[in-house]
Amino acid sequence: MTPTITAFERSPDGGKGLARDTRVRWALEEVGQPYAVRLVSFQAMKQPAHLALHPFGQIPTYQEGDLALFETGSIVLHIAGRHAGLLPGDADARARAISWMFAAVNTVEPPILELVTARIVESDKPWTKERLPLVMDRIRDRVKQLSARLGDADWLDGAFSAGDLMMVSVLLRLRASGILDEFPNLSAYVARGEARPAYKRAFDAQLVVNASKHPTG
Amino acid sequence: MTPTITAFERSPDGGKGLARDTRVRWALEEVGQPYAVRLVSFQAMKQPAHLALHPFGQIPTYQEGDLALFETGSIVLHIAGRHAGLLPGDADARARAISWMFAAVNTVEPPILELVTARIVESDKPWTKERLPLVMDRIRDRVKQLSARLGDADWLDGAFSAGDLMMVSVLLRLRASGILDEFPNLSAYVARGEARPAYKRAFDAQLVVNASKHPTG
Repeated sequence: MTPTITAFERSPDGGKGLARDTRVRWALEEVGQPYAVRLVSFQAMKQPAHLALHPFGQIPTYQEGDLALFETGSIVLHIAGRHAGLLPGDADARARAISWMFAAVNTVEPPILELVTARIVESDKPWTKERLPLVMDRIRDRVKQLSARLGDADWLDGAFSAGDLMMVSVLLRLRASGILDEFPNLSAYVARGEARPAYKRAFDAQLVVNASKHPTG
Repeated sequence: MTPTITAFERSPDGGKGLARDTRVRWALEEVGQPYAVRLVSFQAMKQPAHLALHPFGQIPTYQEGDLALFETGSIVLHIAGRHAGLLPGDADARARAISWMFAAVNTVEPPILELVTARIVESDKPWTKERLPLVMDRIRDRVKQLSARLGDADWLDGAFSAGDLMMVSVLLRLRASGILDEFPNLSAYVARGEARPAYKRAFDAQLVVNASKHPTG
């Protein structure tokens, strides 16, 4: 059965792949599972029909027969559980890969979300200019530990896994800040993720949607 | 085989159950799995021996034979996968419960972490007094959606699951702010979690450690 995901009708980033549907598209591309996309507007996302699918009024959602899921991490994990290619077969290695999925969303992403908040939501506040360096230093503290763990390995724990898919996706949000460039091994790690054919297909698919809505950008 | 977890030798909250080992203890108590605890100091957490277990120098970790895991969410998921009692048997219901686990750590917890940062890390900054209401309003926006979804149900999706365990644990961090009291159904939801015998055993076990280190309070 072909699953259907939701994505922004018009992504806030204009198609740079930072919207979370890219993570789900990437997972589906890695395992070779075709999928359908239903685009939703910001208005529709806050209406009861969408809130029934996603209690927090966001994208992506994932529908497959009677199953409806929300939260990128759980959707990627669900896809990884149904198909080969995103999690190791060995039970212990699988559990470790899932640790990296949670590390991406619960340890590395929160300080990055603070930067997004500072830059966008609080951009007009009098304290933002002075506060931004503190926010960025907190990100550096976390990312430095990740860099130390990765070392010169290609991926976080053996072969590419859903843990890498989630971590690369989270780190991509840092590129505009310049912080990623301060850690050459992480920069190369992210580039390795972006170079995967499945990532490219996912990125291109979301770009087509958004480029058509942003003819000038 | 008895797993060993790590916990703070001296928890920053003095034993209120907010340190993340409580989540893992709670999961282990729900499934009736005995466990050992190794206490670590703040200094030891930043040393190579602990960083080998937890790349971000935090607690808890989980060791079971040759398996070493970090990240509370993945440890709880691992425990839930090995034992009955924390995830439904039906595959779809199981996937939905895991969605709530990720929602707890990736959608509800990040704005709450911003409040912790504002209150503790930035407590001495000139902007904090004016900024706090904005941080709190962002939490309210999220928590209001959670409250709407929960409605008058006991748990988020049918019977109590690892999704509720994680969500209650995240919401507990809000109690001191007063925000939880603004949503009576969430307040009752958290109280239902705290009333579970397994939660009480987990809370008491971490309190014993910390009370002995904080004789005055």
